[in-house]
Amino acid sequence: MPPSGRAAIPDATVARLPLYHRCLLDLQAEGRGKISSEQLADLAGVNAAKVRKDLSHFGSYGTRGVGYDVDHLLVEIATELNLDRDWPCVIVGAGNLGSALATFAGFTNRGFTVVGVLDVDPTKVGRTLGSLTVRHQDELAELVAEQGVAIGICAVPPAAAQEAADRMVAAGVTSILNFAPTVLDMPDGVQVRDVDLAVELQILAFHEDRSRHGGPDAG
Amino acid sequence: MPPSGRAAIPDATVARLPLYHRCLLDLQAEGRGKISSEQLADLAGVNAAKVRKDLSHFGSYGTRGVGYDVDHLLVEIATELNLDRDWPCVIVGAGNLGSALATFAGFTNRGFTVVGVLDVDPTKVGRTLGSLTVRHQDELAELVAEQGVAIGICAVPPAAAQEAADRMVAAGVTSILNFAPTVLDMPDGVQVRDVDLAVELQILAFHEDRSRHGGPDAG
Repeated sequence: MPPSGRAAIPDATVARLPLYHRCLLDLQAEGRGKISSEQLADLAGVNAAKVRKDLSHFGSYGTRGVGYDVDHLLVEIATELNLDRDWPCVIVGAGNLGSALATFAGFTNRGFTVVGVLDVDPTKVGRTLGSLTVRHQDELAELVAEQGVAIGICAVPPAAAQEAADRMVAAGVTSILNFAPTVLDMPDGVQVRDVDLAVELQILAFHEDRSRHGGPDAG
Repeated sequence: MPPSGRAAIPDATVARLPLYHRCLLDLQAEGRGKISSEQLADLAGVNAAKVRKDLSHFGSYGTRGVGYDVDHLLVEIATELNLDRDWPCVIVGAGNLGSALATFAGFTNRGFTVVGVLDVDPTKVGRTLGSLTVRHQDELAELVAEQGVAIGICAVPPAAAQEAADRMVAAGVTSILNFAPTVLDMPDGVQVRDVDLAVELQILAFHEDRSRHGGPDAG
């Protein structure tokens, strides 16, 4: 498949590749050499046909009766996801959430290093978070340029989110993970993924009533 | 439409209703009385035809040339999402993430109250988080029963997540928002939503390379 074929990987597959990557990391840590599509499917919580189809998008087919080589598949997926390099990230907002994210163990072994946490609040600037010291937001452009940061995490209150995102973009950030419950208005070429934790709870609540009470009239 | 028609609301619509709800809350706070589907679409970052279709699922059509009544639509969506009641939640895991979630301002005005944070770590039990005191995980069943908790938030490290989730289910929790990067094996009738923050970054990284360098060979 030519390199340009990469663009054809469906979004749904892209969203599942990190799950396979995570499962394979666990398997590698356990010293497993081979994995069948059924086993990987089971670990990732999807069906085996989908796993085979997803992996076939970049030419991984496994060996009949043997399965996939864990190490090899891990490298292939990591390459596909651009995790064959490390991604330095910055966090804007050193409140409770930003502080928790700054020291979140789940980022480092998955390809992401938080290289800076910034805030405008003088009571937060200078605070120590793990190995980092909270810096003033005015230092954002310098930090982004210095560390080659492409990804920014927006962890400020909703009213401050647009300005924080604008500053990140002006500094050179091109991808934003936005935890503020607001829609960011961004220029073309900047991608945003929103994580609204209340939305996740609301989706659970929608199904909760139905699964518990069988209908809107009950309960 | 009969009450049983509710079950027919597509998942994609269910996932967008919380966004509309959030935008309408903002509009209500600003004192806005009416909103057109175009304006709501713009605020929610989706297209207007989709907004109209989504809202039509539960019989909201707006008035031609006038739009939707903000207060009325807010009540309708809240009812649809079962947010016409408050949902008490528990958090298992009082590490950095669990602690941040316990005091997260974004939950309370959206229908969710964290009524307890629990941990097994004696150095964490007894700590104060906002108005809560971290309790020992052994008190989970009592707390869930006492407060009628249906929703649990799993904020423990991956190796402890399955056990924490099993304990929540044994205590009576039927919906779990899981922040641990692992697939939980849950009995039928228990729903899980996974929020893997590294997955979100990895999806950004996948597109990042492409949008910046135009192909996997570049850069």
